Amino acid sequence: MATLPRPIDFYFDFSSPYSYIASEWIDALAARHGRTVNWKAILLGATFQAAELKSPVSYPIKREYSLHDFERSARFAGVPIRNPEKFPIPTQNAARVFWWLADQDRERATQWARHCLRAYFARGVDLSDVAQLRALADDFGIGADTAEAVWNDPVWKARLKAENEAAIAAGVFGAPFFVVDGEPFWGNDRRPQIERWLEKGPF
Amino acid sequence: MATLPRPIDFYFDFSSPYSYIASEWIDALAARHGRTVNWKAILLGATFQAAELKSPVSYPIKREYSLHDFERSARFAGVPIRNPEKFPIPTQNAARVFWWLADQDRERATQWARHCLRAYFARGVDLSDVAQLRALADDFGIGADTAEAVWNDPVWKARLKAENEAAIAAGVFGAPFFVVDGEPFWGNDRRPQIERWLEKGPF
Repeated sequence: MATLPRPIDFYFDFSSPYSYIASEWIDALAARHGRTVNWKAILLGATFQAAELKSPVSYPIKREYSLHDFERSARFAGVPIRNPEKFPIPTQNAARVFWWLADQDRERATQWARHCLRAYFARGVDLSDVAQLRALADDFGIGADTAEAVWNDPVWKARLKAENEAAIAAGVFGAPFFVVDGEPFWGNDRRPQIERWLEKGPF
Repeated sequence: MATLPRPIDFYFDFSSPYSYIASEWIDALAARHGRTVNWKAILLGATFQAAELKSPVSYPIKREYSLHDFERSARFAGVPIRNPEKFPIPTQNAARVFWWLADQDRERATQWARHCLRAYFARGVDLSDVAQLRALADDFGIGADTAEAVWNDPVWKARLKAENEAAIAAGVFGAPFFVVDGEPFWGNDRRPQIERWLEKGPF
């Protein structure tokens, strides 16, 4: 009897440009190979701390290259982007709403993630600003007050913390990070390798 | 009157696995687009210091992933590799011989780079060991004594230092690092973007 192919784990941070780019291709790529995608919002701050890493834009010389590469890599992937003025930003509120939605309906949580990532990276909406995130929740149809209650709720704070810890335990040290059949792939630029794996299996 | 297409600058370090992988495809890719490649040996230690960076294998969690990814990325590119037991290693001696050769014959210097990269990454020859590097110089036909005299010569020590400084001034913070028509690309995984650039120009 055939077993169902395992879903792809896709770890992302709402403030990660390479996560945003990957979020625009991962579902279609998975679908072409009969796979689904298990989106997982994390905080890069937590994984960076565990792995003693920092954002690429926090280093001299590498910073300028990285800002240029964010936009060029998006153009290469055909994804609209404009580097946000405020970057990086804390994104725990958007991430807590994600996990609250995921417990009810994973597909709806994925839609929320896309809604927020596009708002931040294509239109400059600041996800760390309460008023702007409330407006996004209203647009999305969950209501600003409901969303704000979720991100202030200790239950969803604890949930996000647990998800970060689970990610670190799974070997995640950056984003986007993919796990396919137990195999880890880090970065938007691992797309060709993921594609090969899905087409032909382990290499 | 048509102008000749500009050569591609290819910065590499003899102890960088991603540089080794890139060294196996860059010349053929360039040739398909009527370009030549200007190989430039540098020391990652110098560029890391300027950009306040460290090797990916010096971080917890990321280390294990990176060692796995070196070998997987090589297999993906069809390049034979075996992670060397001693890694990373200091490679200033091999790099000084490179620049000494480059002043006489760039193509011969490129061959020396390939000779050393393959020895280290495919056969485990330790380039930081004087006896092993002397043997490589003999195999290559420049003579062990000549090679050793070069790497101990203040002239070639100064030359490598100047090349590192020029690389840093050009924005190089890691390896492999490519500059195509003034456009910087960092990493073996920028191959598809370099290919697009060569095919269709700026994007």
